[in-house]
Amino acid sequence: MMNNVEPLAMNPKTLQRYAIIGAGALGGLYGAMLARGGHDVHFLLKSDYEHVRKHGLKVDSIWGDFELPRVNAHATAATLPPCDVTIVALKTTQNHQLPELLATPTSQGGSVLVLQNGLDIETEAIAATSRDRVMSGCCFLCSNKVGPGHIRHLDQGRIVFGDLDQNVTHSRAQQTAAEMVACGIDAKVSEHVVLVRWRKLMWNIPFNGLSVILDASTKELIDDPAGLHLATCLVDEVHRAASALGIVIPEDHKLQTIESTRKMVPYDSSMRLDFKSRRPMEIHAIFDNPVRSAATVGFEMPLVSALRDQLRFLDRRNGNG
Amino acid sequence: MMNNVEPLAMNPKTLQRYAIIGAGALGGLYGAMLARGGHDVHFLLKSDYEHVRKHGLKVDSIWGDFELPRVNAHATAATLPPCDVTIVALKTTQNHQLPELLATPTSQGGSVLVLQNGLDIETEAIAATSRDRVMSGCCFLCSNKVGPGHIRHLDQGRIVFGDLDQNVTHSRAQQTAAEMVACGIDAKVSEHVVLVRWRKLMWNIPFNGLSVILDASTKELIDDPAGLHLATCLVDEVHRAASALGIVIPEDHKLQTIESTRKMVPYDSSMRLDFKSRRPMEIHAIFDNPVRSAATVGFEMPLVSALRDQLRFLDRRNGNG
Repeated sequence: MMNNVEPLAMNPKTLQRYAIIGAGALGGLYGAMLARGGHDVHFLLKSDYEHVRKHGLKVDSIWGDFELPRVNAHATAATLPPCDVTIVALKTTQNHQLPELLATPTSQGGSVLVLQNGLDIETEAIAATSRDRVMSGCCFLCSNKVGPGHIRHLDQGRIVFGDLDQNVTHSRAQQTAAEMVACGIDAKVSEHVVLVRWRKLMWNIPFNGLSVILDASTKELIDDPAGLHLATCLVDEVHRAASALGIVIPEDHKLQTIESTRKMVPYDSSMRLDFKSRRPMEIHAIFDNPVRSAATVGFEMPLVSALRDQLRFLDRRNGNG
Repeated sequence: MMNNVEPLAMNPKTLQRYAIIGAGALGGLYGAMLARGGHDVHFLLKSDYEHVRKHGLKVDSIWGDFELPRVNAHATAATLPPCDVTIVALKTTQNHQLPELLATPTSQGGSVLVLQNGLDIETEAIAATSRDRVMSGCCFLCSNKVGPGHIRHLDQGRIVFGDLDQNVTHSRAQQTAAEMVACGIDAKVSEHVVLVRWRKLMWNIPFNGLSVILDASTKELIDDPAGLHLATCLVDEVHRAASALGIVIPEDHKLQTIESTRKMVPYDSSMRLDFKSRRPMEIHAIFDNPVRSAATVGFEMPLVSALRDQLRFLDRRNGNG
């Protein structure tokens, strides 16, 4: 059990300081694990601020449950200290806030690690810092926020990330991954973050999209022959789009996407939760940008585009966009 | 107003006798108009039998409102008399009942007129009679059953039909259409019923399908840019499938399908009503059969197939199929 490991033999003076922008299902989990591991972690919170300031964070995790009664909680980005790594774990629909939210924590040359779904979602982070200070990655994670400051990590959990610019001279990627691993996080560095993003899109596009349109959990989709066929066709179209862009994802990852989902706990995708709560869905990052990217090399994505249009219709009826 | 026309100058002795199998939104309307026009019309009813036997039929129609206090109501097909024309206006999901339901009314050589949506839906009618006694057609009609024996005809209303076998020696198509017209029905004979069916599929596939998946009326679909784009792409795919099969539908009918729907009253498609009431949806007739037919000439229908799979998922969750 992760909560029984001994205190880590790391020198606190050399440990990186982290800011977590968006302490929800994803940022809350990883931030809490980094804080438990001895890092100075600063959480930017919105609705949960008062609760977390008073009671800290509570994590129920397949990696072991734990509580942090005291964390550095911030209600505004202005009070965040300069950090080595600022993790962006907001929804991409909030990215317009990033110039303001990133200003203070990155003010002394720190890096940004964007852990959001979708494609071409680093634009605001680059604008707020510079391309050589931006790391980008995806989380293969089933986690929900189940109450104020209360995260439930249900399944999986790997983070794969790397520098956006592979020619960066002073990369923080290896150190960040090493620190995460030391804190019990399943983290890995990749030299091809665009591939990582398309690999994740092979999951997000079918399972976020269909879960909303068919009002279904991942398990319901996989267990029905028609749901499974739809998901399989979408995975295939995303895979072919990546190929058309020269991004080589092994063929067997298509089946792997389906089979790993079959083994997962029944899960409500983040997009389904957004839809149910009438929050804007991440259609732009997860659907529009991949379709547009594929179109630059003349590859059409008819099934993904149709699913995108269906989501757009429902999003608009929810009063968004 | 249609309800003010004088009694028709027709000889009751030469008028055809009709049976109406399924006196709902469609069969109830046309059957009532034929009965009002002086025909001997026999209605086979299920849940409405007692009400219609006692109170007859009530029609609210854009062609004029009227009531028929007394009609020939039947609770079982066994009591139907032999008829010249038996109109099949059931849902295709009930076609397995047709051998039993058609036996008596067609027992003396009468014809069947199948007025259902979809493709290849005449199989049971042919089996119950013979190919040269089957007429087939589509109704371009907005009509709902709003209560027991109470039909509300909202918009449009044209019937286009013809003989399934164009080499039939004793066609009843012209006489039937003439009688319908004399009774105030907008009826027309076509020599190419398969074309008529594909023309209707250009409407059914997008607007039945999307209305269920997006839980939307025709007006909501058309008024939203994403809904309109989805419908347009589906209309186009159906039109191209027909072309691949050698069925030439003029190009401008694609836009006409959209524009006539835009001018229509906001309408809940029959499939949407079926879905909401958890009745089986006509997926086989309206989606499977056209996809399979197009596949025989190597034409794939990816968007229609995906929409079909989505409907199948929802239908199964409703406990059907």
